[in-house]
Amino acid sequence: MARPKQNDRAIFLPMLKGDLTRTAILDEALQMASRSGFTGLSVGKLADRTGMSKSGLFAHFKSMDQLQLQLLQRARERFVDTVVRPALATPRGEKRVRAVFDSWLEWSTDVLVGGCIFVAAAVELDDRPGDLRDALVQAERDWLEMLATVAGTAISEGEFATDLDTEQFAFEVHALMLGHHHASRLLRDPRALAMTRRSFESVISAAHGTP
Amino acid sequence: MARPKQNDRAIFLPMLKGDLTRTAILDEALQMASRSGFTGLSVGKLADRTGMSKSGLFAHFKSMDQLQLQLLQRARERFVDTVVRPALATPRGEKRVRAVFDSWLEWSTDVLVGGCIFVAAAVELDDRPGDLRDALVQAERDWLEMLATVAGTAISEGEFATDLDTEQFAFEVHALMLGHHHASRLLRDPRALAMTRRSFESVISAAHGTP
Repeated sequence: MARPKQNDRAIFLPMLKGDLTRTAILDEALQMASRSGFTGLSVGKLADRTGMSKSGLFAHFKSMDQLQLQLLQRARERFVDTVVRPALATPRGEKRVRAVFDSWLEWSTDVLVGGCIFVAAAVELDDRPGDLRDALVQAERDWLEMLATVAGTAISEGEFATDLDTEQFAFEVHALMLGHHHASRLLRDPRALAMTRRSFESVISAAHGTP
Repeated sequence: MARPKQNDRAIFLPMLKGDLTRTAILDEALQMASRSGFTGLSVGKLADRTGMSKSGLFAHFKSMDQLQLQLLQRARERFVDTVVRPALATPRGEKRVRAVFDSWLEWSTDVLVGGCIFVAAAVELDDRPGDLRDALVQAERDWLEMLATVAGTAISEGEFATDLDTEQFAFEVHALMLGHHHASRLLRDPRALAMTRRSFESVISAAHGTP
């Protein structure tokens, strides 16, 4: 969906208002989906929570499929705002790798009531072929690639070993975040954060290579 | 549920037959739940798949809650058969740690059509308080404790470092399995198994400690 540019606002005001409403609906739906999953979303409940009528909601989203796809897109936007953008504002190298990890932890625990929506969606959609699953796979691949790229900046800054397999590094850091999600959200283990950080230090330490 | 012992079979035959039917129903439901989740289970579909009537099913399970709880219990039995028992038959120490990991991978990929039911349930139930969630948390804690105990046998055999934190070790190996589930089931990444094994070797190597 193309958004109007800043200087077009006056002309596109009605569209912009619709856009703001839609974003507010999506943010509410995102909170709900983080607990119930994408397929557990109910238009009735969403109408209740946003104080809109069902037909009012359908004016913004033609169908549940459309709503789910736009929801995923909105989750990506929020993720970029919370994790990617702040990380890219830090210096290249290990510092940036650590910044990504810290803001990712924040995303996983503080942004949505039900935890990371991508973790929930991954399990929910893995056996459900379709556009939503395809969009999720794309999002996850992009993210793992980004992690590998950030690790690469630490190689070029001379901090990580030149023979580091950055895709393997991304896989391991991602696995740790899944472990953190499990320990904190399901087990409510008070050591979850400490164990995750400790494992992350092992992965970082291994990335330095043997001198 | 207490099962009749071998030599009581003649007396308990009617009960035993009921038991066998119930197990067959649970195994079918387990396959379904591995794809749709516990809360996505439908009595109608289960009746279709088992060739039973809905009332016939409810004769075995008084309610959906009962069915879900017994399903989790059945999943634990299957897990013990596939992963725990074979591992305990191998020599104590690193060999046993590796045996656990291998049979766990087998469990994750080959036993149920939708992959590991515990991974799916963890995300599905983390925000749903109740008996089913409690039973799952118990199962997961038992399993992490078991992993730590097996790592402990490798310490007492002199293979792992004496100062290894076995709970941390269990957390890391578990995180890797979650990473494998994500890479293989959602991303269908052909490198999933190789990456998981490689990370496992790093964890094992770190467990040896610095000589």
